[in-house]
Parts: sequence; structure tokens; C-alpha cells
Amino acid sequence: MAFAPFEKVALIGLGLIGSSLSHVMRREKLATSISGHARSAATRERAMELGLADTMHEHAADAVRDADLVVLCVPVGACGPVAEAISKALKPGAIVTDVGSVKSAVIREVSPHIPGNVHFVPGHPIAGTEYSGPDSGFASLFENRWCILTPLGGTDADVTARLTAFWKACGSNVDIMDADHHDRVLSITSHLPQLIAFNIVTTAADLEEVTQQEVIKYSAGGFRDFTRLAASDPTMWRDVYLNNKQAVLELLGRFSEDMSALQRAIRWGDGDMLFDTFTRARGIRQRIIEAGQDTDEPDFGRGSQHSETTAPADGRD
Amino acid sequence: MAFAPFEKVALIGLGLIGSSLSHVMRREKLATSISGHARSAATRERAMELGLADTMHEHAADAVRDADLVVLCVPVGACGPVAEAISKALKPGAIVTDVGSVKSAVIREVSPHIPGNVHFVPGHPIAGTEYSGPDSGFASLFENRWCILTPLGGTDADVTARLTAFWKACGSNVDIMDADHHDRVLSITSHLPQLIAFNIVTTAADLEEVTQQEVIKYSAGGFRDFTRLAASDPTMWRDVYLNNKQAVLELLGRFSEDMSALQRAIRWGDGDMLFDTFTRARGIRQRIIEAGQDTDEPDFGRGSQHSETTAPADGRD
Repeated sequence: MAFAPFEKVALIGLGLIGSSLSHVMRREKLATSISGHARSAATRERAMELGLADTMHEHAADAVRDADLVVLCVPVGACGPVAEAISKALKPGAIVTDVGSVKSAVIREVSPHIPGNVHFVPGHPIAGTEYSGPDSGFASLFENRWCILTPLGGTDADVTARLTAFWKACGSNVDIMDADHHDRVLSITSHLPQLIAFNIVTTAADLEEVTQQEVIKYSAGGFRDFTRLAASDPTMWRDVYLNNKQAVLELLGRFSEDMSALQRAIRWGDGDMLFDTFTRARGIRQRIIEAGQDTDEPDFGRGSQHSETTAPADGRD
Repeated sequence: MAFAPFEKVALIGLGLIGSSLSHVMRREKLATSISGHARSAATRERAMELGLADTMHEHAADAVRDADLVVLCVPVGACGPVAEAISKALKPGAIVTDVGSVKSAVIREVSPHIPGNVHFVPGHPIAGTEYSGPDSGFASLFENRWCILTPLGGTDADVTARLTAFWKACGSNVDIMDADHHDRVLSITSHLPQLIAFNIVTTAADLEEVTQQEVIKYSAGGFRDFTRLAASDPTMWRDVYLNNKQAVLELLGRFSEDMSALQRAIRWGDGDMLFDTFTRARGIRQRIIEAGQDTDEPDFGRGSQHSETTAPADGRD
């Protein structure tokens, strides 16, 4: 079904998510016009060069004026201050949403600044890459990924439906859940893996007997997989941990307990325990592939190395 | 420079590494004939169907008879028993090598069974995917990866040079180091990342408030990256931990300490500590990419999703 475009969409923040939204909105004609705000002059200029917005504004309030949809694409910790800054400029009847990886804290910080005649529906597209900034976006980022909306009690069902249709038009699947549950789910599917990735790189950097050069050269043994996540934006992630403290700490406790059990099995040579744990862990990937959330190509299809097989000898001998 | 092919190469084990070696040896004509051994009749049959070997043998000793190069491509824990089984059948002057992820233990278990007129040069190609078995191999697996050789004191330099040339002809870069150092280096670049991947999947499986289906659906938040490693062969990995106990336990201690420091920073809201740690961790990926050990495509180039950008509207509106 055709999606009735928004007249004007304001993107507050033109990083990976904001710029990707711009690309897909342009491609799918989801907005008549796009206004944008970025804190830094360099980003505002680059966004104009890339055609990410029709107008870029130094002040967020100027970007949201007359906008029918306002999307906060800034780190979680910036959502409250931004909401305060745009509060008085919001158009009656507008929808405000966000893309933050934590939902309860965003609701707590943003809600007080949303006027009674404006709709606030928090959201979170579970999509990204390790790159950031206005150049990192691309139109298919949300394709077949999930976007979770966490509408507050009393939200007009039509408004949630409209935002759902918008994300579907961007290529996403959409789920609705409450904010606390979202934060618990994301602590395992995103926040803990990310923290572990940052941590193991730190541990590697501090070794005395193994050089950085060795870690880099031999990283294809598995380590390199973690460095992708560890290349992600530090500000964004700092804000995630400061704002999803409870769920992350609870999960870290469980992770450490499980790690200690494996450590003990290694120390005491309990091969059966290791084998059973590894066998159990093995199964989940197939289900992720079947759910369309990862590729079944070996090694993520990196560099298409696997596409070559037993080609005829090329005469090098 | 042309590599003078081996007359006969014996592959003991036809899993990912053994079958990949067969593919590249065929393509580059590195052997006049290939004999193989696999424990299971199904693998032996499949290896013949795939043309991985000219002859497949139920007993490893029959495979190594008259072989100039014998490559042990079995889990680390099987190397000792296999060496014992082939000991008497080895041809004088033959080179025996292996591909195990642990070197000191392999040397300890294998060396006693190598006759005085046979050369044993332990090796480890740092290459792999999450798949295993005779169908998983491909000729370019070793391309631009590193292979580490850990020759024992007193090894004939010509023999090490010959094996080095062989791995280079397979597409690898080759480094020489001592076995203990290898085991420490691999504990950080491979064994710890792999253990963490197994562990986080286990932690996820045991949650009460988040369903398995949710973990799978929303895994694009980072979790899915870990499931690739967790899909690897349990037997191989059990043997790694049982045989590199000391280096892995030492490293696990450091990892846990660093994790506790991050946990504390989250609990006490120390955003500066988190930001500094994350910023420091971010840098290493660029160096891995520059070293040719990973792709710079966003998200490992998965499914080429990034190749699409602002294409013209396709008329769906």
C-alpha cells in the first residue's frame, strides 16, 4: 500500500542513522521536504553537500518548525536537552520520535518537554554499522531489520500506526513493546556484546608479552570480529551504558558467572563441560540465519574469499 | 619462483583445513598425488566424491606410506594418538607438520612418536571459517593469512624453508616463532575471543525474561557477530582449551579485571572512563584493515547491503 508522505520531516542529527533515513526517505519519497540540524558547522555543511536535507539549521528549534515528523537521531544522552530546545517550536499535531538504543531513560528525559498537542512515540531501529557521521549513511540500512516502537500509555493508535507505516516504508519490520522490556532485550542483543568488544580490545592493548603488531597480524583467528564493534562511536555507547545501567549490570553479573564456570572447567580439565557448552552455543546461529538476520556465507562473506573454489590451475607452477 | 611439487602429500583429517589444503594444492599443483585419512567412513566417501584425495584410507598409517609431506589436520587432542599410529609407516626423510591452534602441547604429544630420520615442523595457519567438514573447504582460505611455524631446536633449515615455500605457494604469509610465544599470541587473537563468543551465547540462552526468539530477531544489534564464532566445531575448541590452559587462564584473569573496571564505571556513572576506554579501543580496527586482515566494508560487507545508496526512486510511492 502506498505510504502517504509527510509534508516535512526534521532530522535532528545527521550521523549514520539520520543520514540513512534521509537516503531512504528520498528514494521512497516519504517526505516532501527534509530539514536538518547538526551541532557542528562541518556536519551541517557536509549534509548540504550530500543533499541529506533541503535546509540545515544551527538551532534544532529552527529545524522542527512546521515539521510533521521530528526524528531525534542523536546520542541517548542528548535527547533530553534537544527535546527541551525544540519544545516550543513543535507544530501542534506533529509526531516526535527518536532512534535511541535505550528507551526508558529517553522517555524519562524527553516526555516532560513534549507539549500536550504533540505526539511522542519512542523508537529504535536495530540497524547500524561501525561507521558514523553524515557520510556513513545508505538507503538500505533498515532493510529487513527490526524497528521497535515503545509507545506510552494513552498514545493515539493512529499515530503509532502512522509511524509504523513510515518505518515499514523504510524497509523495516516493526514490533511494539514496552520500554523496560526493550531495554532488557537490547542489553543482551546489543549492549553487552558491544561492551565485551570494547573490553577485549583494551585487554589486548595492555599485554606486555604480545605486541600490538602481533595482535593485528594474527587477528584473523577471531579477534578481528570484535574490533568491528569496537570501532563504533564512543559517545553513543557511553550514553547507552549510563542510561541502561540496571539491565546491563544484571546481565554482566550473569555473563561473569558463566565465564567463571568455563574458566573453572579449563583449569580442571573438564572437557565434557566445555564440549557440552560449545555444542549448545553452536545451534543459535542457524536460527539467526533462518530469521534473515545474518548471512550464511562463511566468514560473513568477507571479501568474497569463499567464492573461489577449485578453479583450474592457472599455470603458475 | 616455481615451487617444486611434493611427490605425495598425506592429509590426515579432511575437515575445513584439510579439504582447503587439497583444493589449493590441486589448483597450484603442489603435489603429484594426495592420500587422505578420515576416521569416519562417511567423510572418507565424501572426500573421494569431492576429489579431495586420490586415495582415502581407513588407517592413517596407510595414508602416510611413501608420503613426502604429512599434514595432521585433526583436532589438537588427536595429534598425539595419530602420530603414534603413523610412526612406523613414515618414510625416511619425510616432513610431518600439523595445523593445530596450540603448539607446545602438540610438540609434547607428537615429538616422541617421530622417528629420528623424519622431520617434524609444527605449524598453524591462522585461517578458518565457522564451517567444518569436507564440504567446507575452498582454495583461497589461506590467501593473505598468516601461517606460523614453530620449528624445534636442531631442525634442518632446509626443511623449514621447504615448508615455508609450501605455505607461501598456498597463498599464506609465513612467520617463525617459538611454540610458547605462539600459544600466548593465539590466546588473545583467537582462543579468548572464541571462548567469549561461546559464553555470551550461553548467557543469552539462559535468560528468563528475554525469549530466544527475541534474541534472534534483534541480534543485528551486535549479538549476531558473536554467533559466527560460536558456530565453530566444539571438539576442535575443547581441545584448544584443554591444551593451552596456562595462557588462556592468565588472559581470562586480565579480561575479567578489565571487565570489572568497566562494570564499576557503569555502576557509578563514570562517563569519562567509559568514553576514554571506548575511544582507545576504536583505533585498532583501522590498523587491522591496513594490515590486510579485514575488510573496510561496513558491517564486514554482509549481504552487500551497503552497495545500494541513493538510487533513483523506484516508483513504489
